[in-house]
Amino acid sequence: MEQITLNVNGMSCGHCVNSIESTVGKINGVSEVKVHLNQGKVEVCFNSETVSIDEIKEVIEEQGYEVV
Amino acid sequence: MEQITLNVNGMSCGHCVNSIESTVGKINGVSEVKVHLNQGKVEVCFNSETVSIDEIKEVIEEQGYEVV
Repeated sequence: MEQITLNVNGMSCGHCVNSIESTVGKINGVSEVKVHLNQGKVEVCFNSETVSIDEIKEVIEEQGYEVV
Repeated sequence: MEQITLNVNGMSCGHCVNSIESTVGKINGVSEVKVHLNQGKVEVCFNSETVSIDEIKEVIEEQGYEVV
């Protein structure tokens, strides 16, 4: 299990938090997601044998946010 | 049928637009809702015999926004 903190642009409200936490949380291999709205950060605990960082970033970007 | 434009604080993204347009649009007596995100304004067409402005404001505030 690994942990990354991604910098994400465009998260502006509680709906954005829910949107990211629910979609990223559903990825196979992701065990925990926590959005820090005021810091523009998303913390993710994941199993790197099951899912790659790129796949996690892609899911966030599909929701309309920019991973920087 | 009447039309009002409400000034609403706290709308920050497309999720907020959807949230307000869908909940206000479902009120009996409301025929049209349009959120102008960058102006912080919500335009509502409604039948004042069926619904009051206060009821419309209440639904917006229940979603977590402030009508000013």
